[in-house]
Amino acid sequence: MRQAYQIRLNDLGEHGARMCRVASNNLRDATTALLTADLSLAEQVIATDVQLDVMRANSENVVLELLALQAPVASDLRAVVSALWIVADLQRMGTLAIHVAKAARRRHPASVIPVEVRPIFERMGRVGVHLADQAGTILTERDVALARSMESEDDLMDDLHQEMFAALLSPNWSHGVAPAVDITLLGRFYERFADHAVAVARRVVFLVTGENVGGDTTPAYTPPER
Amino acid sequence: MRQAYQIRLNDLGEHGARMCRVASNNLRDATTALLTADLSLAEQVIATDVQLDVMRANSENVVLELLALQAPVASDLRAVVSALWIVADLQRMGTLAIHVAKAARRRHPASVIPVEVRPIFERMGRVGVHLADQAGTILTERDVALARSMESEDDLMDDLHQEMFAALLSPNWSHGVAPAVDITLLGRFYERFADHAVAVARRVVFLVTGENVGGDTTPAYTPPER
Repeated sequence: MRQAYQIRLNDLGEHGARMCRVASNNLRDATTALLTADLSLAEQVIATDVQLDVMRANSENVVLELLALQAPVASDLRAVVSALWIVADLQRMGTLAIHVAKAARRRHPASVIPVEVRPIFERMGRVGVHLADQAGTILTERDVALARSMESEDDLMDDLHQEMFAALLSPNWSHGVAPAVDITLLGRFYERFADHAVAVARRVVFLVTGENVGGDTTPAYTPPER
Repeated sequence: MRQAYQIRLNDLGEHGARMCRVASNNLRDATTALLTADLSLAEQVIATDVQLDVMRANSENVVLELLALQAPVASDLRAVVSALWIVADLQRMGTLAIHVAKAARRRHPASVIPVEVRPIFERMGRVGVHLADQAGTILTERDVALARSMESEDDLMDDLHQEMFAALLSPNWSHGVAPAVDITLLGRFYERFADHAVAVARRVVFLVTGENVGGDTTPAYTPPER
């Protein structure tokens, strides 16, 4: 019984790691599609929507089965319950990357990203992908030290987000309102992607240590003063 | 044992309904603060942050206790597990309203909302508050018909969001980029608030019927063509 339980629990970790890979790939490809106006790559990301739903439903079914058949307690119960939150965060990460891909598709063949904010989006893409990859490692290896280190990388995303606002609100911004609206929303998607990756890491800390660092991961929304 | 379980489960419904009231009050007051540049009202909303964290932690503790001590199965298990998602959505609603209040505080004594989009934000506020109130009723009364009817009210929020984009991108928009950036993010907060209220309603449908209408509640982000 105990062994069957452990196998199902490991399955759940694997499910999570696979969802991380989808989220990470989605954000990498969506960023490329955004920066190169690559329509077929954007479509490919958008098509993962159903896959993410199925992955989440499968994980949730494993959780419900484990709770019903094994009635876990203590740290086992924490692990199973954490999985519910984790798959919700991972699905949301995949969906936020899909939002980025949809922005690329909507403006195709035009590019959404004016040249002066291009390096910011390249870096936001790289940071987001790295956070998702780290979340995957943390899920399979339960690496609490790595989980804690993700907070500072999330700060980097927040800094990039501020840089993006500064560019939009600079007197040199020559593109008007419409691209600014697109870019504001895109920046929000990257920022939230990173927040959810950090939430996954926090949940793993809870799972391993029982220490609830929870609460809400969203930093205050702070565009610069004007 | 069964009776103790039922009492704790009802407690959980009451916890949820209280969180709905906080979310609903927050959005109502944050919208007023935004439209009237009322700093003290904005501060009052922002101060509920800790309260929301505590409310969520308390609910989660009840859930973990129920799972550990009662090992529920079937519909009882669904009810307990649903509560985990529901409190996460409710906390997020409260936090999104806090984001609105922070925007009001940041620009005080200036108003964030130019006169031509004012009616849109008044209506988004009313729709959001109504959705949160309905979610509270649905939680305590487990009213599946009311839960299903919330989808169409969420469509109304999406329509208002589109109207908002149309105003920003109109040739008559005379306020430039900075207010457009604020308004874009504010619109997103109202839209997400409504999405989470609908997610709560869907979870109640799952809880009562076992029918998982889950997946992601976010509609595609679709500012108008330009």
